[in-house]
Amino acid sequence: MAIVMHDLAGADPALRFSPYCWRTRMALAHKGLAVTTIPWRFTEKDALAFSGQGRVPVIRDGDRVVSDSWAIAEYLDDAYPERPSLFGGAAGRAHARFVNAWADGVMLGGIARLIVRDLLDVVAPGDQAYFRESREARFGMTLEKVQEGRETRAAEFRTALLPVRLVLGKQRFLGGEAPSYADYIVFGNLQWPRCVSRFELLERGDPIAGWRERMLDLFDGLGRHARRLA
Amino acid sequence: MAIVMHDLAGADPALRFSPYCWRTRMALAHKGLAVTTIPWRFTEKDALAFSGQGRVPVIRDGDRVVSDSWAIAEYLDDAYPERPSLFGGAAGRAHARFVNAWADGVMLGGIARLIVRDLLDVVAPGDQAYFRESREARFGMTLEKVQEGRETRAAEFRTALLPVRLVLGKQRFLGGEAPSYADYIVFGNLQWPRCVSRFELLERGDPIAGWRERMLDLFDGLGRHARRLA
Repeated sequence: MAIVMHDLAGADPALRFSPYCWRTRMALAHKGLAVTTIPWRFTEKDALAFSGQGRVPVIRDGDRVVSDSWAIAEYLDDAYPERPSLFGGAAGRAHARFVNAWADGVMLGGIARLIVRDLLDVVAPGDQAYFRESREARFGMTLEKVQEGRETRAAEFRTALLPVRLVLGKQRFLGGEAPSYADYIVFGNLQWPRCVSRFELLERGDPIAGWRERMLDLFDGLGRHARRLA
Repeated sequence: MAIVMHDLAGADPALRFSPYCWRTRMALAHKGLAVTTIPWRFTEKDALAFSGQGRVPVIRDGDRVVSDSWAIAEYLDDAYPERPSLFGGAAGRAHARFVNAWADGVMLGGIARLIVRDLLDVVAPGDQAYFRESREARFGMTLEKVQEGRETRAAEFRTALLPVRLVLGKQRFLGGEAPSYADYIVFGNLQWPRCVSRFELLERGDPIAGWRERMLDLFDGLGRHARRLA
């Protein structure tokens, strides 16, 4: 029986843009596990009541329910040890936590400041007020103000990606010769702007852009064929 | 026969402060390998000619010469697989590269901007002109100017350590339950200011400060008993 995953969706139910959900989608594909995704909107808290919390991704695997992208990755590697490993062992997992922490604590905020107003145009009508209010409270200013001047600020964001760039100058993937969950973390973050915004965050020629192309090709183009803003 | 390591020293030959050399010292201790360190100064390029380059750390292990702290760590894990692993396997190594890249590309620069003028007071007399000229060229301003206002800028540096703090909120060491090379990378960077400056970078109560205490205790207090600025 396929794993069921609640996946953040826009007004267009095929538009899936959560960076955390993308990490999980890629992790499931890496493990070769079939998944049925259920579109979910920010305000549908009731639909997640079974998980005891209110955010996606949430997966249901038989009678097991797991929420939080990191916890899901750990669950998948522990529950399916005979399938390709996401972490490559205990040290690989421990060290991947640093990538996860950097991706959450540094990279996501940098992306948000470049595309958060664009998101408002793709979220479901019923989510728009919630989205604007919750995000404006977080940033302490309007979404328009947060995103303002992004053309000049994008360079600063690219500079902040230096650790990724340095690693990719040494090895093909963050996981080494092949992708690991570390790759899915950073790639998931980049799928977020790629799906909801026409603003391009990466420059051609950046090794990170080349790596992203390789990531988009994985699993029969799972990332590449994802619905994007038309 | 003990491994020989060229180790950056100050006017006081017992003062060893290179963040890269500290990574290697800790890595050697982790592997349980004896080491004889040779104090080296910035301007003693001839003393490293045998290594084909001009920077420390350099180790000589029998007839093998290895320079660059990352390359040394890889060498040690490959050459002594029967001793405690620094990386915990291929994925652990691949993911540790990200920690290394962040530590080099983000953390070290942040530390330098807080303590680089202090360094001038501890380097050997023969190194002082070289140190000032090379570092001022890098920063495009005097060392005094670089370090100016550090009391207010330190908060920004601590914010930049967020990924480390997030990980240590989840696990005891960057390596998980026990220290790995990832810990030695970040710890090595912190030994640099700890040995050469009276300016304290970490706040009491910061989980990173607590972790550093654990790191200082490792290997019979190798880090704790290191010579510091009086």
